[in-house]
Amino acid sequence: MISIPKSMTDTATQPLTIKEFLKLPETKPRSEFINGKILPKPMPQGQHSLLQIELCQAINRAANPNKIAKAFPELRTTFGGESIIPDITVFRWVNIPIEPSGKIANRFNLPPDWAIEILSPDQRQTKVLRNILHCLRHGTELGWLIDPEEESILVLDATQRVEILSGTSSLPILKGVELELTVEQVFGWLTLG
Amino acid sequence: MISIPKSMTDTATQPLTIKEFLKLPETKPRSEFINGKILPKPMPQGQHSLLQIELCQAINRAANPNKIAKAFPELRTTFGGESIIPDITVFRWVNIPIEPSGKIANRFNLPPDWAIEILSPDQRQTKVLRNILHCLRHGTELGWLIDPEEESILVLDATQRVEILSGTSSLPILKGVELELTVEQVFGWLTLG
Repeated sequence: MISIPKSMTDTATQPLTIKEFLKLPETKPRSEFINGKILPKPMPQGQHSLLQIELCQAINRAANPNKIAKAFPELRTTFGGESIIPDITVFRWVNIPIEPSGKIANRFNLPPDWAIEILSPDQRQTKVLRNILHCLRHGTELGWLIDPEEESILVLDATQRVEILSGTSSLPILKGVELELTVEQVFGWLTLG
Repeated sequence: MISIPKSMTDTATQPLTIKEFLKLPETKPRSEFINGKILPKPMPQGQHSLLQIELCQAINRAANPNKIAKAFPELRTTFGGESIIPDITVFRWVNIPIEPSGKIANRFNLPPDWAIEILSPDQRQTKVLRNILHCLRHGTELGWLIDPEEESILVLDATQRVEILSGTSSLPILKGVELELTVEQVFGWLTLG
């Protein structure tokens, strides 16, 4: 069940600015502000959630000990006039916004260094790809679009060059993060041992 | 109804070479030979067919009179170990294979100069994008992936750089073809006057 009040999605009669959007309470499923419109994300299902947590964990195991980078699930990032929630955002340690108190900030008003989206069943790939391109245009170095149904991963570099990887292909990782992963290994996580 | 005999799709027990595949009779819907597997194309529906013919016509109106290029719907092209049928292939005039008799060849064993795919409802975008990347890796200069549901067009250049265009954005056209088209104009064809 979508719990967004009708007034929130009814942008035709009541256009919102991103400032106004950011003042609204978070919804379930969460909403993104893209191209002046409020769009609800699909509710994550089993395969989506498992890939999300396993991949976050794998990246953090490799990148946290030496303070290289940190992976976050479902983190709202706001920049370039849009407010999006990639399924996983990875920030280099030096780029993580910190409050004067020393605590991590709540608002991330910058693009992630690595953006990862996981396609949900029936989700429009164009929409998700558009989010990744928005990131790359604003400085993100690496984008992944994971397609569980096809068991393949679209990889985009900073120049927006796209490759489709599958099987035993090695996945490109954010520079500086020492992690080796094949596409097969990623989808292998879906089979609980 | 898919009319492909079970034996044709049952590649697990009976792997085919591309040579053997090409000897098989054409099916309805037609089949592509991709990555060693026979995959049926979806049966085209109304919107798909209309975009296909309108775009072919627009390209041919611009590119035929001066013998610059020719657009073909549903033409089988075989190269790089695959045999695919992009929804539209555009060949520069000088690249169109000609038989000794002077007639156009039946077999096109070369990549198109411009490959266009139109996403069908429920078709997996990754599969279609993979076909376009296969073309670009073998010398195709320009790829379009038309998404009627999103009213947007993914455009890929020879370096596999991807952009998503929508609304009043001008579409990049095969060099030398004098045609100006916006995304809006393309989807405008869906509304019969």
